Amino acid sequence: MAFSEFRPLDEKTLVDYVKAVPALSSKLGGNLDDLTIKEVGDGNLNFVYIVIGSSGSLVIKQALPYIRCIGESWPMTKERAYFEAVTLKEHGRWCPNNVPEVFHFDRTMSLIAMRYLEPPHIILRKGLIAGVEYPLLAEHISDYMANTLFYTSLIYRSTTEHKKAVAEFCGNVELCRLTEQVVFSDPYKVSEYNHWTSPYLDEDAEAVRNDDGLKVEIAELKSKFCERSQALIHGDLHTGSVMVTHDSTQVIDPEFAFYGPMGFDIGAFLGNLILAYFAQDGHAVGENDRKNYKEWILKTIEDTWNLFRKKFTALWDKHKDGSGEAYLPAIYNNPELQLLVQKKYFEDLLHDTVGFGSAKMIRRIVGVAHVEDLESIADPSKRATCEKRALYLAKMLLKERRKFHDISEIVSAVRNVQ
Amino acid sequence: MAFSEFRPLDEKTLVDYVKAVPALSSKLGGNLDDLTIKEVGDGNLNFVYIVIGSSGSLVIKQALPYIRCIGESWPMTKERAYFEAVTLKEHGRWCPNNVPEVFHFDRTMSLIAMRYLEPPHIILRKGLIAGVEYPLLAEHISDYMANTLFYTSLIYRSTTEHKKAVAEFCGNVELCRLTEQVVFSDPYKVSEYNHWTSPYLDEDAEAVRNDDGLKVEIAELKSKFCERSQALIHGDLHTGSVMVTHDSTQVIDPEFAFYGPMGFDIGAFLGNLILAYFAQDGHAVGENDRKNYKEWILKTIEDTWNLFRKKFTALWDKHKDGSGEAYLPAIYNNPELQLLVQKKYFEDLLHDTVGFGSAKMIRRIVGVAHVEDLESIADPSKRATCEKRALYLAKMLLKERRKFHDISEIVSAVRNVQ
Repeated sequence: MAFSEFRPLDEKTLVDYVKAVPALSSKLGGNLDDLTIKEVGDGNLNFVYIVIGSSGSLVIKQALPYIRCIGESWPMTKERAYFEAVTLKEHGRWCPNNVPEVFHFDRTMSLIAMRYLEPPHIILRKGLIAGVEYPLLAEHISDYMANTLFYTSLIYRSTTEHKKAVAEFCGNVELCRLTEQVVFSDPYKVSEYNHWTSPYLDEDAEAVRNDDGLKVEIAELKSKFCERSQALIHGDLHTGSVMVTHDSTQVIDPEFAFYGPMGFDIGAFLGNLILAYFAQDGHAVGENDRKNYKEWILKTIEDTWNLFRKKFTALWDKHKDGSGEAYLPAIYNNPELQLLVQKKYFEDLLHDTVGFGSAKMIRRIVGVAHVEDLESIADPSKRATCEKRALYLAKMLLKERRKFHDISEIVSAVRNVQ
Repeated sequence: MAFSEFRPLDEKTLVDYVKAVPALSSKLGGNLDDLTIKEVGDGNLNFVYIVIGSSGSLVIKQALPYIRCIGESWPMTKERAYFEAVTLKEHGRWCPNNVPEVFHFDRTMSLIAMRYLEPPHIILRKGLIAGVEYPLLAEHISDYMANTLFYTSLIYRSTTEHKKAVAEFCGNVELCRLTEQVVFSDPYKVSEYNHWTSPYLDEDAEAVRNDDGLKVEIAELKSKFCERSQALIHGDLHTGSVMVTHDSTQVIDPEFAFYGPMGFDIGAFLGNLILAYFAQDGHAVGENDRKNYKEWILKTIEDTWNLFRKKFTALWDKHKDGSGEAYLPAIYNNPELQLLVQKKYFEDLLHDTVGFGSAKMIRRIVGVAHVEDLESIADPSKRATCEKRALYLAKMLLKERRKFHDISEIVSAVRNVQ
């Protein structure tokens, strides 16, 4: 059984593949003719199979050379699987508790075999729609963000290591271009891919396309996205890229990873939580008005940032005499200066986070790909009300983000939207 | 005659090399046994030979695997010649009038053969010390900066082209690290390489090392230098990297080139003009008080920025419907918005320029490599007076740069230093 060239697998040929790869067959154990295989790819891009054997399980993800949800008419390099595998390993190295283990990667086949996140793991976004609280979510996701971003930044690394890694991830340009298009461009112009809750948001969508102030700001953020190699970011850290149980938080699907601005990851996560918050009124039924749940989301937003900041700072302090090049110990050698530098660092990062988070909200309301939190509100007028609130907030935050200095002020702004 | 491996050339072996390479021998013509060869490398890093034959001339520059002015104790990759050659060709493509033509590049030998900039071309810095006015300098150097920076930025290019080029220049990391050390680090800490006009500037050097506000700002600039791939910058655009006559301005020595922040180039040039300005009082003799010359320098600073801005804007307007990805025509499609976006762009760029320019001034006064403008002032007390003024201005500008909105305000600040 040779796979010397790329070929798309299906449930049947997947069995042959697993049999041919010892690293996989040994994981599953026993009789490989009795595997349970289920295709579950509900994302936009890839095929994902759950493979369960007599003594083990795994997930196999294969990238095809186009975007699954659109079809062969939108080609997309299958090399994205390579960057996803490298990132899963690199992020897993720094935060093993929150990144699924990779068992096997086949570059020819654009195929990753990794840990199967068994039930009751579900996609966080679905939990947020169902109104489930995850008491450890902020703790876990802040662990993930602090560790992956700190350890791949110049605060920890030498410029030699950094530039080498940056150069490699420049190869993931097609995925970066997709983000540039759908996040930073399409929502601000007429595009065949854009859609919104019509006719309710027709004027709102047009207003976005005609808002010069917004366009000036989105240009700055796009430049930062294209030009600033601050850390190895996940690149698509919305609530659909996180799987959760009450005790576990696992970050998946980093195929958009590259060296980019940290605020793009943190903003994606917080922005999607804000969308979940505004969607709650659309999910409220009878006595379950979701009021408490909305408060839990706001608390999670605040905790995530504050814990991220605390943990990132702790890593910084721990490694301040290490080989990182951004802040040499011989220069930043006194506690007051360290505090001063960190204060400025997090203020700038909060502004980036709020900017990118707002851009991510806007694109989910008037761009090509929407979020289930809002799409699942069946009544379009009710959905439109939720969307208008989120859009109002996102536009304001994008333009006014430099006036905010603390996450609590952002949370107040969310709460104050009527 | 084979040169299958690297070997350092001298006046004698250079002749063998020239004879073996038709692209070179044909340039020089006639009897190759009658070449005039002169080693003239007065820079810090390389060996440079002028080769004159019966019917032509050229310059041959060879990089050795260490820094010439320090010796083999400070190794430095000779691959820098590759990045220099690529940059000369790329910058030459966009601004052929101000970049010497490359005739031949040999990667194995780390050797570039290029146009000999014949007399009366001299290094601009020497002209500035002599008090010579170059009426076309601002016009020419703004041509160079506008064209090389615009055409290698995302305003003109697609992200696909851009990321490919960025990845390649990540390979020039050793030269970037040298800049990081001597510009952004050493002046702010105790370093064996630092020196200054002692004892006059002892307290000033110590004050730089103890200035927390300055260290916060230099950290931001260092991050930008390491992380922001805005355009293919020269990387060392001081007045020693420019050769001039009254009619010609030629930019040489881009071995530090990489994709970095534009303000680093513009700031290097303007910062070195400001150093030349402050050095004038040290060169004033008798009736030649250099007052008019100082005014000419200030005018050149102002003209350079204003012409750069005008030309860069013209290129932007000319190519606004092209394939550049930063500002898509479908989004930035109206004249007022275009003005708004450009206003913000140049305001941010001026702040970067002033920041990097100030950092370059500081390092030339208390860091490892000083400038001849000041070093050639024989009287140390007189030299110290000039240096103190430049240092005072640079520290102020570095910290307060965001308060300046126009180059005329910067020029006023220079003029107001007593």
